[in-house]
Amino acid sequence: MAKEEAILLDFWPSMYGMRVRIALAEKGVSYDYREEDLRNKSQLLLEMNPINKKIPVLIHNGKPVCESSIIFEYIDEVWNDKAPLFPSDPYDKARARFWVDFIDKKIYPNGRILLYKPKGEEHEAAKKEFIDSLKVIEGELGEKPYFGGENLGYVDASLIPFYSWCHAYETFGELSIEQDCPKLIAWAKRCIQNKESVSNTLPDSQKIHNFVQHVRKIFGVDE
Amino acid sequence: MAKEEAILLDFWPSMYGMRVRIALAEKGVSYDYREEDLRNKSQLLLEMNPINKKIPVLIHNGKPVCESSIIFEYIDEVWNDKAPLFPSDPYDKARARFWVDFIDKKIYPNGRILLYKPKGEEHEAAKKEFIDSLKVIEGELGEKPYFGGENLGYVDASLIPFYSWCHAYETFGELSIEQDCPKLIAWAKRCIQNKESVSNTLPDSQKIHNFVQHVRKIFGVDE
Repeated sequence: MAKEEAILLDFWPSMYGMRVRIALAEKGVSYDYREEDLRNKSQLLLEMNPINKKIPVLIHNGKPVCESSIIFEYIDEVWNDKAPLFPSDPYDKARARFWVDFIDKKIYPNGRILLYKPKGEEHEAAKKEFIDSLKVIEGELGEKPYFGGENLGYVDASLIPFYSWCHAYETFGELSIEQDCPKLIAWAKRCIQNKESVSNTLPDSQKIHNFVQHVRKIFGVDE
Repeated sequence: MAKEEAILLDFWPSMYGMRVRIALAEKGVSYDYREEDLRNKSQLLLEMNPINKKIPVLIHNGKPVCESSIIFEYIDEVWNDKAPLFPSDPYDKARARFWVDFIDKKIYPNGRILLYKPKGEEHEAAKKEFIDSLKVIEGELGEKPYFGGENLGYVDASLIPFYSWCHAYETFGELSIEQDCPKLIAWAKRCIQNKESVSNTLPDSQKIHNFVQHVRKIFGVDE
């Protein structure tokens, strides 16, 4: 089936990549996963994403789709016969997009500073904004089982990759996410337990921790 | 008609605001325009966009939609009976989203540095990336009348506000956009000439120039 000729250029610890892998799993799309070496990018990646040269890239029937949130919307539009990942109401859809934008601007970048910048003013400011942002998004979850309501949606798939990084955030950022955001951690466990698309996608927390430790050594970040 | 109860919180020189105003004009939506004083934000803005506290915000039937690209998609989905602003094919739609993301990450931020940072290394790097990015997007336009093909679409409405800032970019950045990107300027003139949604939205270039000069004085940027 032509619809299914899909190749994913990705890198296993990437939270943006995981977001796409969850969407593909939810839709039941078979695809050819190709691991990239980001320090020696493949010719295919450079050809398929010449502007940003970044993973993930979904190559569908030979044509590249870049940027994880754009790929996510594309997947939902193309494989629209099952597992809708967006609400149908335009206002609810706009809200989902708003929260993913928030995750991408507030949570992930501050998390990166927390892991890879040495202690000091910038690190402390990022730590505060990171936790504050997690609390804000926990507030958005409220008492719902998923951000998407009764089922996993765009915000869930975009945020849950973060859970596999929590052990690293807690170790290197010296914080307790479960203590600050218990409902968010309960939501993450619910996703893992109830959604194979998530449990099959998220790498082991210890493996991410070791990866971060390795990158910190390369960056010369002291503990 | 309930669909038309719309308020736009905006600031006249904002390229993000103009993008939304063009979409509303294309759709023929009447709305209540409320100019914000960004140094003394209204209570309504702070209530409607408590997370980012930024314009533009579209308040539709009392409910806020924030972030210009999200508002843009919302407008196209709600007022879907005329002037489609997105291609119907998911791949073309993904491409349009990719280019708007490019505009928002490469063109507008570098343009801001060009205008508001003193001369030096950062300024020079931004100038180079600014012009390179304009050339890249000019390449994407190719020989089409509009980025959207035969009609104005998402990329057109998102990039054209930049044209009202060109005089300021050229003066304070010491460059000639028309010389570097003649087809892009021809496209801009075509938009102005053929689309009332654009000509009625874009402020006078000299007014923008004066606004930039005023902000540069506040920031203490020497010429």
